[in-house]
Amino acid sequence: MPHLHIENNSRASVLSHIREPQVGAARERHPGLRELKVTIGWDADILDEALKSADYLIASRPPRERLRQRAPKLSWIQTTGAGVDHLLPLDWLPPEIVLTNNSGPHGPRCEDFCTMALLALRQRLPQLMHKQREKRWDSLFTQPIAGRTCVVIGYGDLGQAAARAAKKLGLLAIAVTRSGKGTGPADEVVVSSLVETVLPKADFVIVAAPLTPETRDFMGRRRLGLLRPEAGLVNVARAALVDYAALAEMLREGRLSGAILDVHDPEPLPSDSPLWSVPNLMLTPHISCDDPRYADMLLDAWAANFARLDAGQGLRNVVDRARGY
Amino acid sequence: MPHLHIENNSRASVLSHIREPQVGAARERHPGLRELKVTIGWDADILDEALKSADYLIASRPPRERLRQRAPKLSWIQTTGAGVDHLLPLDWLPPEIVLTNNSGPHGPRCEDFCTMALLALRQRLPQLMHKQREKRWDSLFTQPIAGRTCVVIGYGDLGQAAARAAKKLGLLAIAVTRSGKGTGPADEVVVSSLVETVLPKADFVIVAAPLTPETRDFMGRRRLGLLRPEAGLVNVARAALVDYAALAEMLREGRLSGAILDVHDPEPLPSDSPLWSVPNLMLTPHISCDDPRYADMLLDAWAANFARLDAGQGLRNVVDRARGY
Repeated sequence: MPHLHIENNSRASVLSHIREPQVGAARERHPGLRELKVTIGWDADILDEALKSADYLIASRPPRERLRQRAPKLSWIQTTGAGVDHLLPLDWLPPEIVLTNNSGPHGPRCEDFCTMALLALRQRLPQLMHKQREKRWDSLFTQPIAGRTCVVIGYGDLGQAAARAAKKLGLLAIAVTRSGKGTGPADEVVVSSLVETVLPKADFVIVAAPLTPETRDFMGRRRLGLLRPEAGLVNVARAALVDYAALAEMLREGRLSGAILDVHDPEPLPSDSPLWSVPNLMLTPHISCDDPRYADMLLDAWAANFARLDAGQGLRNVVDRARGY
Repeated sequence: MPHLHIENNSRASVLSHIREPQVGAARERHPGLRELKVTIGWDADILDEALKSADYLIASRPPRERLRQRAPKLSWIQTTGAGVDHLLPLDWLPPEIVLTNNSGPHGPRCEDFCTMALLALRQRLPQLMHKQREKRWDSLFTQPIAGRTCVVIGYGDLGQAAARAAKKLGLLAIAVTRSGKGTGPADEVVVSSLVETVLPKADFVIVAAPLTPETRDFMGRRRLGLLRPEAGLVNVARAALVDYAALAEMLREGRLSGAILDVHDPEPLPSDSPLWSVPNLMLTPHISCDDPRYADMLLDAWAANFARLDAGQGLRNVVDRARGY
């Protein structure tokens, strides 16, 4: 009987925690899972014992040291998150072990969050919330959002959702991708080396790309400076894609209309971070793309992939070792 | 040459102020307006002189005392706002003078605001903004909004916009109207006497009805109490439709998920109002349905109505004296 070990990290988001009842419910939904021996560990309590016989592993932070020796049978690792930036570079991963991420379940929530964020920036909600805090009535009138331009950085699961949000609101959506290719709801797809030609046109920028060595500081000080003062920025991806210090400076100086940041470094954001009180900046605690049914959705996706494996089909969501996502 | 007098109130919203350049621009756009003598007054400075010869009046607060004697030729009054609740009852209005309101230009903005407000309530933005104020990281996860139920009180210009917002997000939209009739984007239309049958089903309530003696306190303490604790409320209409004291109490006690109030009494809301700091309550300063091009849009709508008058057609947006809107 093949063995799946589920390794929980108590410090990771509670959403990613997978417990016995969830596994039981997943076995009900997916009879294929009944053929598996499943063990559940926490913070490496039974990890080394489990790895000795595990064929498959689900983990937010897979063990990386001497993995082949410790887990002789392991052939597939599933991460609980979509981003694998915390695992890069992938030089620790034996070539015969497949790594899959959990891309997919974040889309519908991300679309809702981006739709809200675009409208909030358009209607100057960050300013209005600042004024509410100061108990100050000061009306700011804005025209409808339709017809404005949204640049979406990244065009995977999150970027597609961001582009759907933009199109639903009647915006022009320009997606920026590594290859300059990609199909989906965006009106235009631009290669990332040309991003500086589209930033000056943006009313909104949504950062939705994976974090890799290539995308780190993608929206750095110089590129942020290409945005118009009326523009607003949203980050639903990873903090390190954007220079938050430069962004905060621009917001304080009124060189940008507003920003909504859902991702931070570190998380949880410490209470002494200066970001909490930057004017015209709304902070949300990494909730933009997560659904409370996350663990169930993860098990559903894993079960579907397991069925593909069983049928000799290729796995979905395989991480490309060279690209890092 | 017919005479149009435009009476500005300097204490009314700056958006409603109509000045010489705007009238000039409107005459360019609408040649029919060139046949008019137009005078512009402020706070009754030339009002009595103007009324002696005025055929038409545009005003936010039309003069009500001895109107027939002071304005012997007056046949048509246009208000600058959509709501005429501040002019009720209409017993001061001579029967041969037509009163029209400015219903129509608020729809697209209202749709944007309601779309944002629904998503903000769904994603617990009022709570998250409260936590940001306290520099507190505390994640709240929510499922996508699609499939939830939105009850819209009122189904005129604003109510239709609110229902469009709900449908755009994949909600079930139930409109509540005086007659129980009405066509538009809502899935169901319910007569207002049956509102208590739909309130317990609501994930969201959007208040978008005109203020009349019948709708005053429409969402009073008892009806608010019919809402589920997970529900949220938005008011884009008039403050007096909702019992804000009862609402604040419910929000403080966690008996309602959140609320977004754009209309207040009085406006501007004084800085010592307790509403500013009620938890899970977002306040916006009467900006939900107004466009910065408001005065131009008003003159465009008036010109179109004036052309109808000229062509012997009935005027649009005539206020019903009995219903009060």
